[in-house]
Amino acid sequence: MQAIDEQTITEAALGQMASTPDPRLRQIMESLVRHLHDFTREVDLTPEEWLEGIRFLTAVGQKCTAHRQEFILLSDTLGLSALINALHDKRATEDATKSSLLGPFYRHDAPMMKLGDSIIMKSPGTEVCFYGRVVDSKGKGVPNALVQVWEPDETGNYDLQKHDPSEMDLRGCFKADSEGRYYFRGLCPLGYMIPMDGPVGDMIRAQKRHGYRPAHIHFVIGAPGYRELVTALYVEGDAHIDSDTVFGVSDSLIISVKKNDPASPLPKLPSIHYDFRLAVAKDQMSGRVGADPSQIIAKAH
Amino acid sequence: MQAIDEQTITEAALGQMASTPDPRLRQIMESLVRHLHDFTREVDLTPEEWLEGIRFLTAVGQKCTAHRQEFILLSDTLGLSALINALHDKRATEDATKSSLLGPFYRHDAPMMKLGDSIIMKSPGTEVCFYGRVVDSKGKGVPNALVQVWEPDETGNYDLQKHDPSEMDLRGCFKADSEGRYYFRGLCPLGYMIPMDGPVGDMIRAQKRHGYRPAHIHFVIGAPGYRELVTALYVEGDAHIDSDTVFGVSDSLIISVKKNDPASPLPKLPSIHYDFRLAVAKDQMSGRVGADPSQIIAKAH
Repeated sequence: MQAIDEQTITEAALGQMASTPDPRLRQIMESLVRHLHDFTREVDLTPEEWLEGIRFLTAVGQKCTAHRQEFILLSDTLGLSALINALHDKRATEDATKSSLLGPFYRHDAPMMKLGDSIIMKSPGTEVCFYGRVVDSKGKGVPNALVQVWEPDETGNYDLQKHDPSEMDLRGCFKADSEGRYYFRGLCPLGYMIPMDGPVGDMIRAQKRHGYRPAHIHFVIGAPGYRELVTALYVEGDAHIDSDTVFGVSDSLIISVKKNDPASPLPKLPSIHYDFRLAVAKDQMSGRVGADPSQIIAKAH
Repeated sequence: MQAIDEQTITEAALGQMASTPDPRLRQIMESLVRHLHDFTREVDLTPEEWLEGIRFLTAVGQKCTAHRQEFILLSDTLGLSALINALHDKRATEDATKSSLLGPFYRHDAPMMKLGDSIIMKSPGTEVCFYGRVVDSKGKGVPNALVQVWEPDETGNYDLQKHDPSEMDLRGCFKADSEGRYYFRGLCPLGYMIPMDGPVGDMIRAQKRHGYRPAHIHFVIGAPGYRELVTALYVEGDAHIDSDTVFGVSDSLIISVKKNDPASPLPKLPSIHYDFRLAVAKDQMSGRVGADPSQIIAKAH
């Protein structure tokens, strides 16, 4: 038989996986096993440290519910989600707005609203008007683009983190008009600390990181024939704009709040203006349904 | 601010983790993030594939209970556990019996028994006598060494996998005598398929692997002043001895069942003889308490 030692084990594992019929799955698992083994050899991981890793991953998995996605939070804090976005942007064949983090608080069933409606259902705070256009790479409006938005309240919590997470607040879906224009009312975004009451919070504390995200609001924008855009807008001047715990900020996604903006469709409110640029794609928009914590947990059972 | 792209994200993530006070945790996380990012770039992972990975890890975490450890099973099937064992063996300063997989079915509270007792409490099958000595690197007996053993029944299930997993069967703890001798009665080991009803089973099927382990029995052996030995004995001639799904077999751990063995303390039974060699260590034996699925899940909540 093949002698298994700290070097031959990698080829032995890849040998068993060589029968994988799906070539992409085979490629991904081969690369993953090589890097996982290289990491383990590089740090000469002990059985006790391995067991600590098993405990940590188990705790992350057990923390996941229909309203909480601790593995997405882990991916975010390790810079993995930002890397996935950067690779996704690089594959685009046209200039488009940069991606930013989906985060663990997306919900696929947010209410459909009319342009100009407010996503503020329960939580008081400073109201602003978000407006702009959804355009293609040539600047032409994308008619009827679907604009999904969500943001936390002034205490830094999303509706999913509240006492009754089934109640929706501070999220909504809008259909842009025939020229790609959108506008709605929401809270002026504020920064907050990521959820620190789980294993990812333990990690952040053990690493002495501050755990804060700068003020932002999330967007998922899609239209048939275009690549779905998952992004967020960040408020200029936030104390953590250069040290986001989850690496979501890009210069081109930083916006400012204007007090008197005659171009705003609701000029009495402070305004945040942004035009989103979509790249064409053969695939239809996905709507990110599967990224909803409730959908992930449903698949796990 | 620092521009985040698919290359700079790695240094940005490491920059935030540089404040980790514990140097070993810093070293492990830095290597982990580098390899995780390298893997992601190497396969150019898409958002959909990333989400599939989030779903998979969530399902693995949710499958864990006080009686089941799906993350250990994942580590086993990826060859990671075998690698951890090989690195552990390499760090020993003296020759010792090779490690083998702990697996996901260890239990810290197995009953203490007397030498010669049978670990067969409920499950019928072919009884054999396991016997031998626990010795040091010079072949001298290690008095009073603690020998913990566990094995599956003839249907291929451990007690933890049964209808009532709180009932113990086919496991026990023995104290070797003053010359390091141990003997007990148990089932003649049989091979079995790893648990296939969870996400790891889905992975094994997607890879078209057979999922079988060759016939074996697990041992954890410890004594004050010696490195704890986590290992298993494998039965010669098993159809899967060269293709163990979890890479646990070493030539030096393969044993044969003898029909007429005058050296056996119970010569009327078929016998399996093995002498275990322990290496000295400054640390005391750990007893592997923390590796019990019930202890891992308790820590996760």
